[in-house]
Amino acid sequence: MDNFFQLVKMDGDARLGEVRTAHGTFQTPAFMPVGTQGTVKAMPPATLEALGAQIVLSNTYHLYLRPGMEAIRKVGGLHRFMNWRRPILTDSGGYQVFSLNALREITPGGVKFASHLDGSSHYLTPSKVIEIQEALGSDIMMPLDECVGYPSTRGYVLSSTALTTKWAKESLRARSRRSHALFAIVQGGMYNDLRQQHARELSQLSFDGFAIGGLSVGEPKGLMWEMVEATIPFLPQDRPRYMMGVGKPDDILEGIERGVDLFDCVIPTRNARNGMLYTSHGPVIIKNARYAMDAGPLDPDCSCYTCRNFTRAYLRHLFVSHEILSAYLNTLHNLHFYLTLTRNARHAIDEGNFLGYKKQLIENWRETIS
Amino acid sequence: MDNFFQLVKMDGDARLGEVRTAHGTFQTPAFMPVGTQGTVKAMPPATLEALGAQIVLSNTYHLYLRPGMEAIRKVGGLHRFMNWRRPILTDSGGYQVFSLNALREITPGGVKFASHLDGSSHYLTPSKVIEIQEALGSDIMMPLDECVGYPSTRGYVLSSTALTTKWAKESLRARSRRSHALFAIVQGGMYNDLRQQHARELSQLSFDGFAIGGLSVGEPKGLMWEMVEATIPFLPQDRPRYMMGVGKPDDILEGIERGVDLFDCVIPTRNARNGMLYTSHGPVIIKNARYAMDAGPLDPDCSCYTCRNFTRAYLRHLFVSHEILSAYLNTLHNLHFYLTLTRNARHAIDEGNFLGYKKQLIENWRETIS
Repeated sequence: MDNFFQLVKMDGDARLGEVRTAHGTFQTPAFMPVGTQGTVKAMPPATLEALGAQIVLSNTYHLYLRPGMEAIRKVGGLHRFMNWRRPILTDSGGYQVFSLNALREITPGGVKFASHLDGSSHYLTPSKVIEIQEALGSDIMMPLDECVGYPSTRGYVLSSTALTTKWAKESLRARSRRSHALFAIVQGGMYNDLRQQHARELSQLSFDGFAIGGLSVGEPKGLMWEMVEATIPFLPQDRPRYMMGVGKPDDILEGIERGVDLFDCVIPTRNARNGMLYTSHGPVIIKNARYAMDAGPLDPDCSCYTCRNFTRAYLRHLFVSHEILSAYLNTLHNLHFYLTLTRNARHAIDEGNFLGYKKQLIENWRETIS
Repeated sequence: MDNFFQLVKMDGDARLGEVRTAHGTFQTPAFMPVGTQGTVKAMPPATLEALGAQIVLSNTYHLYLRPGMEAIRKVGGLHRFMNWRRPILTDSGGYQVFSLNALREITPGGVKFASHLDGSSHYLTPSKVIEIQEALGSDIMMPLDECVGYPSTRGYVLSSTALTTKWAKESLRARSRRSHALFAIVQGGMYNDLRQQHARELSQLSFDGFAIGGLSVGEPKGLMWEMVEATIPFLPQDRPRYMMGVGKPDDILEGIERGVDLFDCVIPTRNARNGMLYTSHGPVIIKNARYAMDAGPLDPDCSCYTCRNFTRAYLRHLFVSHEILSAYLNTLHNLHFYLTLTRNARHAIDEGNFLGYKKQLIENWRETIS
């Protein structure tokens, strides 16, 4: 896409940017709430919009298996299906094929697997994956890749990245319309030189953006950041960078500091449903007995619907009583936390104060909650 | 309470009325969504308000056991706890004591039972039940009663209604503030004359309203309406009548026709979670395969958020995928259906056309959905 990404400002390596899609423009750095099955769990889209979510991620693999492409086509695409008017990034399904299926077979042409839902057989090729995402109406598509596990031998990673590059080229050729952006996915395991080499290779191709894949797969956190640092210098400055599946609030800040523009992670939504809530003073485990008679708000410094209207005592009661409203109020709060974090990061970059902003936040999180 | 109820208009036996409470005035006939554990399942209170819910019901028994009175007192009462600013009716807990506990013992003084949550022993007396509801800050309190099962012998019902009357008197004496309205509960099993006699007895006492209890406990529907008809003529015209735990949409209409003012039932919320949705053309079982590719709204004649924004295909997908949003969108719709039904019933009574309104609705419900 022409003018897909505009780099607005830099503050150290941190970047303020703007991404243009057929469903509108959004600012980076951005956090994308995860809507695996065509819904960000527990969130009506009107609530997501009110929270300021600019873009959501959805999972090609899950939607392809259920409800299936025919249902989404009939309704007029994924945006209409979910009733989400803003941009959607869809992953390729590769990660799910590898993580959810013991029975899978990789061939140079694609990957065979049995559905985790009903055992039915499927064969996904790079071009099929693009076809599916175009039918979904995805604003940003991801190509089929192999996400290599940790640890993996150098030999395995070498041949795997070669396959991912082959598939990346096939994905570019399969694309029928430029209105759906297409990113490449940099792999390379935990080998600095292979990361660098893969980033260089893929950067030669006409992708609209570059994802850093294969991270947060069990490796130590220091190694993860080493791989990010090995990759980013070899990615083009004028394209967005997306760190897949990461992470905790401090990971988002670390990624932004290193020049990452896009993030997605199930942590805010999944932890919300498990009663782990992020606040400006650090995390709160809401089921703790100490909150049973606590008439204060979850986070006195938070302006979300949950914090403005409910007590910790009530949030604890809903959680221990397994009430559905618990998932709604907790998810709303955690997403508000992540979306405020990235919004304020954009302001800080704009003002040339990203490192000061990051330092202040991390100090606050270490405070003991009052 | 003075001026608690005002009978505004009658249309046949159907009544248009107004109830004044410390948390505002509401119109009758009214349907009260059920918020058993201090939350109408899946509904944020802001959504309930937007739907036009005028009053909700909550369950003394459940709240007394969890989170317990101390937690609710600390937070400042049930309204603040739930963040619900409009009126709340609380039941007495009697029904739950009898329905949820095999281990219970009725004495003239009260009822002993073991908690269904942890087996702990509790003893509720009529005055204790009033004390709890006053602490909750209930706008309309219910006295402890015995809900007799079906079938029950005449002898058992006779002694049981005598006990319920004794407890009703003790409840009146226990009340410390007139700002919390107190209703009586008419029992009498399935015996016309005992219903009549109990209604007469209780009507002599200074209750703010009268509930018809012990119905929808397994008896044939014809018998249920016979009991309502045996009771209502012996209740004072100038007090609201509340038919407890009833019912389906057509039951609400039948009750209104006979002069009932207040209803509560878990049917719209529970059925929503089970995928049974009420529409102007009859019920829809959303998991049916016929809706898998249906791009139409759930109910083309409905103006709720769910029907304005989502397809049947998507609602089916959420339901079969066990997504939390399914409970939210379905509950919102079913409550909108019930609240619209009663709102329109009030208009129809005001225009002297209640029977025409009822006939039209029931005909529509029998249509086959397109």
